[in-house]
Amino acid sequence: MTINEKALQLHEQWNGKLETTAKASVKSREDLALAYTPGVAEPCKVIAGDKEAAYRYTIKANTIAVVSDGSAVLGLGNIGPHAAMPVMEGKAVLFKEFGGVNAVPICLDTQDTEEIIKAVTWLAPTFGGINLEDISAPRCFEIEERLKATLDIPVFHDDQHGTAIVVLAAIINSLKIVGKKKEDCKIVINGAGSAGVAIAKLLLSYGFPDIILCNRSGIVSKESKGLNWMQQKMTEITNLSNLTGKLADAMAGADIFIGVSAPNTVTAEMVSSMNHDAILFALSNPVPEIMPDVAKAAGARIVATGRSDFPNQVNNVVAFPGIFKGALEGRATQITEEMKLAAALTIAGLVPDEELSEDNIMPEAFNPQVAIRVAEAVKSHIHR
Amino acid sequence: MTINEKALQLHEQWNGKLETTAKASVKSREDLALAYTPGVAEPCKVIAGDKEAAYRYTIKANTIAVVSDGSAVLGLGNIGPHAAMPVMEGKAVLFKEFGGVNAVPICLDTQDTEEIIKAVTWLAPTFGGINLEDISAPRCFEIEERLKATLDIPVFHDDQHGTAIVVLAAIINSLKIVGKKKEDCKIVINGAGSAGVAIAKLLLSYGFPDIILCNRSGIVSKESKGLNWMQQKMTEITNLSNLTGKLADAMAGADIFIGVSAPNTVTAEMVSSMNHDAILFALSNPVPEIMPDVAKAAGARIVATGRSDFPNQVNNVVAFPGIFKGALEGRATQITEEMKLAAALTIAGLVPDEELSEDNIMPEAFNPQVAIRVAEAVKSHIHR
Repeated sequence: MTINEKALQLHEQWNGKLETTAKASVKSREDLALAYTPGVAEPCKVIAGDKEAAYRYTIKANTIAVVSDGSAVLGLGNIGPHAAMPVMEGKAVLFKEFGGVNAVPICLDTQDTEEIIKAVTWLAPTFGGINLEDISAPRCFEIEERLKATLDIPVFHDDQHGTAIVVLAAIINSLKIVGKKKEDCKIVINGAGSAGVAIAKLLLSYGFPDIILCNRSGIVSKESKGLNWMQQKMTEITNLSNLTGKLADAMAGADIFIGVSAPNTVTAEMVSSMNHDAILFALSNPVPEIMPDVAKAAGARIVATGRSDFPNQVNNVVAFPGIFKGALEGRATQITEEMKLAAALTIAGLVPDEELSEDNIMPEAFNPQVAIRVAEAVKSHIHR
Repeated sequence: MTINEKALQLHEQWNGKLETTAKASVKSREDLALAYTPGVAEPCKVIAGDKEAAYRYTIKANTIAVVSDGSAVLGLGNIGPHAAMPVMEGKAVLFKEFGGVNAVPICLDTQDTEEIIKAVTWLAPTFGGINLEDISAPRCFEIEERLKATLDIPVFHDDQHGTAIVVLAAIINSLKIVGKKKEDCKIVINGAGSAGVAIAKLLLSYGFPDIILCNRSGIVSKESKGLNWMQQKMTEITNLSNLTGKLADAMAGADIFIGVSAPNTVTAEMVSSMNHDAILFALSNPVPEIMPDVAKAAGARIVATGRSDFPNQVNNVVAFPGIFKGALEGRATQITEEMKLAAALTIAGLVPDEELSEDNIMPEAFNPQVAIRVAEAVKSHIHR
């Protein structure tokens, strides 16, 4: 049986990968009187007088919503809310298993920006945080920005920031190995969707001097046609010398390439044209921009992918569970740039220097210390 | 420590009465590949081709939302969505503990009818059913009716129909004891909100010839002032002889009184004015319309309340878990009048004739057969 056949069979057996479990068991009339009427009126009254008490008496303390509209699911595209559910359930499972965070998958029957914003706003009292997931660009940018501006709970679009955090962590460790300084690196990102944009922003925050962003048409510059509003905005902070040309032009002489684009978009020639000790992340999933053996043969020193069957898997799962664990425990109202940088540094630091190598730049996802340490890093950057 | 103090302390210990638990455990890379990428793409693709497959592969099969806007919570009134959470969590716990149904509490940050309808509509793909809870009348009627008309999953306002079902069950058993026929009974309901209206409708469906509905101003008639649209509609199907007057006028000669109103609204004199073998349900909670001992002394033969510390507790918990269990198992798209009647008859039948008495008209809530039998009754009335 292939893994796909087995996955389908298991999904039918699970018949839903999550369940709700009562922490308050109700086996007697007294239990009922304590967990429900009349006793339940007491916490209700306290919260009615002080909304913050919801964190003391309700699931808001440790429960987030994983919200999608099904518009950009995995590599499957716009498959709609019903078909997106297995992914959101899977994500919710990972939040619980890796971070101890309760998560409710919510797939919305609308793909209208205003309606998604309204839906999440109305849902918010229930939850301690909102993880946006698999919402297509550029709508995802506006949805997240506007929700962050109005809600008093953290809103985090994992396709953007989770990816950016793990990519930055992988770059930090790669640079330790190749011995280059961030100030000297030429970086190219292929893919100007949610992940590419967020990676570019976080790398700039970290202190890389410039980033060349590419999309299907080549280098994103002030001359580019057909950019969405976010890509246009990115031309103001990336590609400072306003280069034009194709991806191959951008990659010539580059120190770091990050692909969050499509299968087989990078050739061996492009890799060979990069600077010595090239770092290449081919994160398109499941088929990378270039296969690791080909990239290595063409001269790349460090290659990472999104896959678990190659070395150096760059996987959000080392970020998002700890991020929300820390945000909830510390009662953060936002996930700030500072927290993201701290999370990336912490993830990088989880690989001890003596274990770092070309084939070992990321911590083991199943190391229980990962979420704990990421959460601590996030919490230490909450200013109230 | 009082029960209220203990309840508050326990709520703080629980810090949320529910958690989400993974049915798919993720302890290895293979687990991750099966429950998440790449394996998860398989059920996604199947559902993308056939929306119904969501019932095979996702939590939709056995998960409902318990939705409130916090506008009419217990006896506490309009306390808002945050303060309503402990009640919705408690309800969700009862769904799971009594019916094996997974339930997610959702408290909405809006009390606008149109916005609540939109929010629930957008949420619907995730869930197999919607339990509306503690939404004030008359908005609750429109919200439920419109959602029922447009959604393809069951929508059930428990304050209306759960209450109506258990009241009807209690009446069926009471009539067995007093030996009266439904055709001969004069019934008075005090309270023309969500519960009162729904009880009146279900009793009419069951075959009672007429109902007198009262509100704070007295008998609801075509002459009444200040009625909401639903109460106006009720004047067309209740109070067929268009009586006017006060509650006391309605109760004179009545066989059955059902109070879903406010504490201490019924006097001993009113009870004494009822017909012989009077049946009196004083369901205002926690303080009933009249205390059972007073009602008994005034001549009532059967007295029921909403409280567990008196005989004959009329409690929705014998209805709603089984109703949704049956609806989900049978993939009902609606909870019909027929299902509600079947549920009431089943609940009544769970008290064997030889155990029926003035002080034992309702089945034990903790009898695990209750939800199972109610679910069977509901399922046997699903016509697809």
